[in-house]
Amino acid sequence: MTTTADRYPLPELTGLPDDIRERILAVQEKSGFVPNVFLKLARRPDEFRAFMTYHDALMLREGGLSKGEKEMIVVATSGANDCLYCVVAHGAILRILEKNPLIADQLATNWRKAALTPRQRAMIAFAMKVATASGELGDEDFSALHAQGFSDEDAWDIGAIAAFFALSNRMANLSGMMPNPEFYLMGRVPREKKG
Amino acid sequence: MTTTADRYPLPELTGLPDDIRERILAVQEKSGFVPNVFLKLARRPDEFRAFMTYHDALMLREGGLSKGEKEMIVVATSGANDCLYCVVAHGAILRILEKNPLIADQLATNWRKAALTPRQRAMIAFAMKVATASGELGDEDFSALHAQGFSDEDAWDIGAIAAFFALSNRMANLSGMMPNPEFYLMGRVPREKKG
Amino acid sequence: MTTTADRYPLPELTGLPDDIRERILAVQEKSGFVPNVFLKLARRPDEFRAFMTYHDALMLREGGLSKGEKEMIVVATSGANDCLYCVVAHGAILRILEKNPLIADQLATNWRKAALTPRQRAMIAFAMKVATASGELGDEDFSALHAQGFSDEDAWDIGAIAAFFALSNRMANLSGMMPNPEFYLMGRVPREKKG
Amino acid sequence: MTTTADRYPLPELTGLPDDIRERILAVQEKSGFVPNVFLKLARRPDEFRAFMTYHDALMLREGGLSKGEKEMIVVATSGANDCLYCVVAHGAILRILEKNPLIADQLATNWRKAALTPRQRAMIAFAMKVATASGELGDEDFSALHAQGFSDEDAWDIGAIAAFFALSNRMANLSGMMPNPEFYLMGRVPREKKG
Amino acid sequence: MTTTADRYPLPELTGLPDDIRERILAVQEKSGFVPNVFLKLARRPDEFRAFMTYHDALMLREGGLSKGEKEMIVVATSGANDCLYCVVAHGAILRILEKNPLIADQLATNWRKAALTPRQRAMIAFAMKVATASGELGDEDFSALHAQGFSDEDAWDIGAIAAFFALSNRMANLSGMMPNPEFYLMGRVPREKKG
Amino acid sequence: MTTTADRYPLPELTGLPDDIRERILAVQEKSGFVPNVFLKLARRPDEFRAFMTYHDALMLREGGLSKGEKEMIVVATSGANDCLYCVVAHGAILRILEKNPLIADQLATNWRKAALTPRQRAMIAFAMKVATASGELGDEDFSALHAQGFSDEDAWDIGAIAAFFALSNRMANLSGMMPNPEFYLMGRVPREKKG
Repeated sequence: MTTTADRYPLPELTGLPDDIRERILAVQEKSGFVPNVFLKLARRPDEFRAFMTYHDALMLREGGLSKGEKEMIVVATSGANDCLYCVVAHGAILRILEKNPLIADQLATNWRKAALTPRQRAMIAFAMKVATASGELGDEDFSALHAQGFSDEDAWDIGAIAAFFALSNRMANLSGMMPNPEFYLMGRVPREKKG
Repeated sequence: MTTTADRYPLPELTGLPDDIRERILAVQEKSGFVPNVFLKLARRPDEFRAFMTYHDALMLREGGLSKGEKEMIVVATSGANDCLYCVVAHGAILRILEKNPLIADQLATNWRKAALTPRQRAMIAFAMKVATASGELGDEDFSALHAQGFSDEDAWDIGAIAAFFALSNRMANLSGMMPNPEFYLMGRVPREKKG
Repeated sequence: MTTTADRYPLPELTGLPDDIRERILAVQEKSGFVPNVFLKLARRPDEFRAFMTYHDALMLREGGLSKGEKEMIVVATSGANDCLYCVVAHGAILRILEKNPLIADQLATNWRKAALTPRQRAMIAFAMKVATASGELGDEDFSALHAQGFSDEDAWDIGAIAAFFALSNRMANLSGMMPNPEFYLMGRVPREKKG
Repeated sequence: MTTTADRYPLPELTGLPDDIRERILAVQEKSGFVPNVFLKLARRPDEFRAFMTYHDALMLREGGLSKGEKEMIVVATSGANDCLYCVVAHGAILRILEKNPLIADQLATNWRKAALTPRQRAMIAFAMKVATASGELGDEDFSALHAQGFSDEDAWDIGAIAAFFALSNRMANLSGMMPNPEFYLMGRVPREKKG
Repeated sequence: MTTTADRYPLPELTGLPDDIRERILAVQEKSGFVPNVFLKLARRPDEFRAFMTYHDALMLREGGLSKGEKEMIVVATSGANDCLYCVVAHGAILRILEKNPLIADQLATNWRKAALTPRQRAMIAFAMKVATASGELGDEDFSALHAQGFSDEDAWDIGAIAAFFALSNRMANLSGMMPNPEFYLMGRVPREKKG
Repeated sequence: MTTTADRYPLPELTGLPDDIRERILAVQEKSGFVPNVFLKLARRPDEFRAFMTYHDALMLREGGLSKGEKEMIVVATSGANDCLYCVVAHGAILRILEKNPLIADQLATNWRKAALTPRQRAMIAFAMKVATASGELGDEDFSALHAQGFSDEDAWDIGAIAAFFALSNRMANLSGMMPNPEFYLMGRVPREKKG
């Protein structure tokens, strides 16, 4: 184990502020476990709340991108940032949303080889530039998005998600956040139908 | 002018939600002008609120770092990310807080040449690694902070500020955010005494 | 789909030289499917034979590294080379050999965060330097291996595997080699016991 | 303070060769202070003379570039080379020549965001390639200059200035040359008119 | 001397397997000396045989590339990988094959400055991408080859040679392989005619 | 041929200023040919004179470095800058000065593999940092020189030569300067004794 994982020990649920504990319990109810990002960040309640609010503002916003497309951006840029937690946890979400057990590993390893539509390739290319060389963004990058039917509002969505996970990836790497074992398998096998 | 600066036009104050307009008016009252970051982000009220809340959670938090030291982190890492807005705007804040007209240009250009204490040098070195190669962070980076008297909570503060401005720098580069002309000169000349 | 995947169409088994067809049928018998690397390379029989002979000389050689450790080297360096085929296919082999469903994703994304022993960390660090900056190898790199009990013969094994997959990764990226869908799931769930 | 700044102590004016002392006194007369580059280099009189002669041959030469444009090249490429002395000292000169208090910080931080004409953008792009990747220069780089009306002689001027400051930046970083405090403020505030 | 050169001592010919000793003696007969690559690799007979078989499969294959063009690929990519052995040894072969005493130093130092035909420039550009960024290969790279008359089979040849020497360069750097002094001069002076 | 070589045509000797023509004729007398650097730069007489004066101030200066050691710095850093002219022309000078036909190719390709003394290795390591990352120079770099017996004046010499050839390499790449064919062979074969 990396010792950084032990550096910021996970807090007990009982000691957390009510709103945070309730959010965590709701996630646990829905997922069957508590993703480590919630516990790692909960030790700083103000930062926890801001992080979750920002996340939801971007990821739940109605707009030109589907939820699956947003997670594609997360997985590809997190791969570029060598962020184990986000690649594995958001890889799981992506597989489930897209009902595609292969897409996450493809995007995290080499998005150019992933089975994407031309529109999605343009989206990921723009997101990767925001993630790795935002200072070089120029008109030609926006034009490449427009050519695939994206609006400037879509460009903002794409870029803002890449920007938010630039933060998120760094927090995970800083805090020694390890993905819960459950994430690795989620979305890889067909769910049993409830009968 | 870069056309990206025109891509996301600044909104009119009158059309903004009350809480946002009031925050902006308060800043204007205090500073004498509205920093462009407020207007650029205000077109997306939910993201605006999350951004400002997160910023305040980190930058106003009481802890082992002074306000000036926090701004040193912002200026140095924003320089590494080629973010004009943050270098100029936070450079102004840093000069004022530190009562040092030279430090911001030094940190933005080459932090190794800046007039820093050994403690501050360790702080900036850690922040720069979070900003540019967070996937390679290891025990040796935390040890270098400890050797200068920083705690793990201080390390979180340093890293989290670098992480937040990884987001902020990308939003500025994405949205074509240009620094207000007022920032360039602030903190460079002694204030006239009132009297 | 990337069009490169269609550039070098897979040959029919019936048209292949006997020795190659037999090797492929043997793999199919054992694995239940034909890994694409065999079909992609089979169109050049001489190169196919040399590739497989070299692979076996390194990966089947008795020495100081276990088979699982050798696959760790493959997965980590293939991740550094953005090679989708090798990350997914050898990730499967690694999970099976190590009976560890998590290790492959960890090594492919960020080996520094993987759950490794100090000995394995030294092994991967050396392999990564061979993969990405072999011209800078020096005595200090061999000393770091020796400190973990590795001999110079082990260093050769580690480096030679990294070198062979430098070739293999490039052939996969050149030829548009896509991982068989079966690989993505292998080793992630406990095998059903045969009764 | 960085100790490198103390490594090569500044010489006394009285001990310098007559021609060098006179040049320094002339600069002091004009500027009101002696820029540190003169004192740092004066300890090696032969190198001092060659440096100044070369500088003047390029920067005072009549040709297709204005003096302000030449200083734009200096500031942008010195930013890319992390040279504190040249960014601050030539930033001052640039502000004064262009009567523009903002342009130097823009060019030093991110030239793509600077308020430049298309012609100036082409000039800076060419200079940056000479500064950072001259081995990759090709016909397409000269064509981009020609498209903005630059001649091959102008290209030589642009490239030679970038090349000279590749030398200058390295000498400043080597010798621990620190900008005089006066430079930081010059050209930022309107000069008082002499009455 | 670098100590790595002493790490894997060269074996005595007498102790080698017959087939390997015979191959080495044949090379010695032809060249007048034994290139160090043969002795360095011979200590691992299985790897030696696979290496030589692979080498011959690529370098002796009849196809769209001349032997001289293949060696151009070797020298340029080995230069990019900082591989002293391959630059010097294959530089000698290239000079002899092309009857050109200048081309090897040009390609090893900066292929863009080498005296090449447009077809050869396209070939080297493709090979360099395989050598240094194979994960980014795309249709545009194949199109650039097609525009110069290369087929997809030629592209495979070019890429496979670059891939094989990615392996070879790493083995040379790993094993401390030093070029025989004879190679440095070969092909630089006209051979004396035998009378 | 690269067309850049034709961009700045070489001037006729007869049209050059007397002092420049005389210097060129003196070189021709001594070497048997006119190195292209003299002709390329002669079209700008002021720059020519400053370049040669600077060159001589560094390369002819008496100090702690031998002439051969100075040329080692030139060849290694010019290799890092992909400068064909300087690698080939100064490689020739280095071979002659050191009476070593192998050292230039070693230093240009991979200085870590070159047959150097520990003192020379420290010298080249320092020079390479000045050439490629001068902004990161720190006390530890000077200490590494001191440990090998170099003084601060020696450090200046090493760094200043690396800095001057940072200029020179860029001028060669800018102007399409091609090495004279004579340089490639010089110093590789023992001179015939004059009888």
